[in-house]
Amino acid sequence: MKSLESTFTIGFLGAGQLARMSAQQAFRFGMQVAVFSDRPEDEPVQFMTPHSYSGSFDEPSSMIEFAKRCDVITLENEFINSEVLKEVQEKSGTPILPSPDSFALIENKLIEKETFENAGIAVTPYRLITGEEDIQNFGKEHGWPFIMKSSKGGYDGYGNRTVKDLADAVKAFDQLGGNRGHEILAEAFVAFTHELAVQAVRNETGVAVYPCVETVQENHICVAVKAPAPVNPEIQKEAQQIAVKAIEAIEGTGIFAFEFFLKADGSLLLNESAPRPHNSGHYTIEGCITSQFENHVRAVCGLPLGSTRMVKPEAVMINLLGTHKREAIIEHVQDAMNEPNGHLHSYGKLQSKPGRKMAHYTLLGDDLHKTWERANELTSGIKI
Amino acid sequence: MKSLESTFTIGFLGAGQLARMSAQQAFRFGMQVAVFSDRPEDEPVQFMTPHSYSGSFDEPSSMIEFAKRCDVITLENEFINSEVLKEVQEKSGTPILPSPDSFALIENKLIEKETFENAGIAVTPYRLITGEEDIQNFGKEHGWPFIMKSSKGGYDGYGNRTVKDLADAVKAFDQLGGNRGHEILAEAFVAFTHELAVQAVRNETGVAVYPCVETVQENHICVAVKAPAPVNPEIQKEAQQIAVKAIEAIEGTGIFAFEFFLKADGSLLLNESAPRPHNSGHYTIEGCITSQFENHVRAVCGLPLGSTRMVKPEAVMINLLGTHKREAIIEHVQDAMNEPNGHLHSYGKLQSKPGRKMAHYTLLGDDLHKTWERANELTSGIKI
Repeated sequence: MKSLESTFTIGFLGAGQLARMSAQQAFRFGMQVAVFSDRPEDEPVQFMTPHSYSGSFDEPSSMIEFAKRCDVITLENEFINSEVLKEVQEKSGTPILPSPDSFALIENKLIEKETFENAGIAVTPYRLITGEEDIQNFGKEHGWPFIMKSSKGGYDGYGNRTVKDLADAVKAFDQLGGNRGHEILAEAFVAFTHELAVQAVRNETGVAVYPCVETVQENHICVAVKAPAPVNPEIQKEAQQIAVKAIEAIEGTGIFAFEFFLKADGSLLLNESAPRPHNSGHYTIEGCITSQFENHVRAVCGLPLGSTRMVKPEAVMINLLGTHKREAIIEHVQDAMNEPNGHLHSYGKLQSKPGRKMAHYTLLGDDLHKTWERANELTSGIKI
Repeated sequence: MKSLESTFTIGFLGAGQLARMSAQQAFRFGMQVAVFSDRPEDEPVQFMTPHSYSGSFDEPSSMIEFAKRCDVITLENEFINSEVLKEVQEKSGTPILPSPDSFALIENKLIEKETFENAGIAVTPYRLITGEEDIQNFGKEHGWPFIMKSSKGGYDGYGNRTVKDLADAVKAFDQLGGNRGHEILAEAFVAFTHELAVQAVRNETGVAVYPCVETVQENHICVAVKAPAPVNPEIQKEAQQIAVKAIEAIEGTGIFAFEFFLKADGSLLLNESAPRPHNSGHYTIEGCITSQFENHVRAVCGLPLGSTRMVKPEAVMINLLGTHKREAIIEHVQDAMNEPNGHLHSYGKLQSKPGRKMAHYTLLGDDLHKTWERANELTSGIKI
């Protein structure tokens, strides 16, 4: 759209923190927010709107009714089948952005990798595994251990297995559903020096790319982000260029995150992509002129994209994960909230459990080392 | 509170843009938002929560039921009688902040002025008017024209009259309700060089004060703000000190706005105060580390206050008023949204009319003159 209209309704399929932080930006533009969740109540976005719907993500009919009440639909995860999305879009007449066609290129990891390779982007070495022979060949070519995953679903380590030998791999193949018709991929274990990420955002008005950041992972979960990544500026620039190439390869509308492995020789491999706001971009809320959430809303609504420039030289984002199984209380926040350059966000989840993403903290600064130390110090006492 | 709790509910009495922008900050801290409006539907905050109530602001019973479902109540205007607020607070057991006692010192302009004078703050010369003799004496002492207003109610020029002679004043006295028992004040017409404003915020953890800004008024409506005010830094500092003295004089909890006249001799007169976020503080959303809305939420929830420092040397805020009587569409926003340092906010009101506050635009910069010119240029084509 070329105007802001107060009756314009942006609909979210999914009601978690990514939709919640996007919805906050939609409100800022005077829009209305509607949400469709596969859970009946108490999800973060359900507390933010009178327009709340629930049903199954596998079954189009209730999503079609929901979509008819919205002007545009967007998603906060990649777990709804693109065929279902296509049907919802066609039968409701409401555009889904990123488009079901873009989703179709990402939802299957095999197609995703082929698409990016065809665009000239180096990806993590992989192979479709149909049985023991493929496993042995892949191990010979790329060495053990390697990673096995199903081509669909899976995030934060779920649906992935690191396999150290043939017996392990045969077992993983079965566990991941290889004997029940699931498509299984092998992916080489890449020796990297850094895991990097870049957000890119695109619509009919143009493309914008965010700084290249480092994601710090523990047990396959992102625990912190350093922006910009403490790597050579040439490498940062290359990652940004690849991100733009990648979003164009899938003709993405909206915000996308691209994750890379940086190898010791300075080369980059595209590892994963996500057609949505991403944990690695939370720092942009205070760290950049326009956050990933604001630019996502702008993009899917056809508005001009905002500047992705950082407002201070450094930003560190710390994920605040659940520490106890209990009703959610974020305790001992005084130090973090007293810090002038620190910004605390809670997602409004009612239940905490160890490892659950409950909140995050962004600290801006001029020096990476000091900002990193201070951010960790300020958040180390927080209990959730 | 000393923790962030996802079931904690902040209740707003009033559902307009000030509550809406505060609610956005409450969401950021993972809180829940509830709203009580004197209109049944379609108010800005009513689109932001499933917890929506309506009823009369004059009648406590439905507000008491509302308050029982909230953990703290705050207000976005000063038009609910402090006695009613006191009853709602007592019968619900839910704190109202700023407190009904603080409201009681502000709701009546006569008591407000006496309170600030007793705290050693210079206020605009005034007198209680009971009849013709008072009018004549005030005119003799302070000259004509002067302003007459009722001691309660009135904003943006409503409930005020500028009177040029005795006949005019006698007529205004009657129109303002002086013959129906309303308390009427005369206020001297102050020859000022600038109208200034300062936000101050206070709770049990401390007091913080925002920069001194200039408010640009047309027909008693604020149309723009320049932050900081283009006046001597000593004067800015004095206005900030008076604001702190004033919020302490009324033992205010939450954000308050104080408006001043700056006279040609460099002296300041406190003109008005508002126990809530204020139009003169909208620039703080992007202009300061912590916005007036975030600090208001922090203050009334007992959280530590955030830094009020500006992030760039200059900020200009332009109010975007309705230009047509029609369904609200904010047109021709491309230029404003394309500007990297510009930030557009729409309030989500469904109906526009000439002069209605519909949206605002903040531009950050390094040079006041350029920022002012550019902000006006970027917004001049917007139609609402």
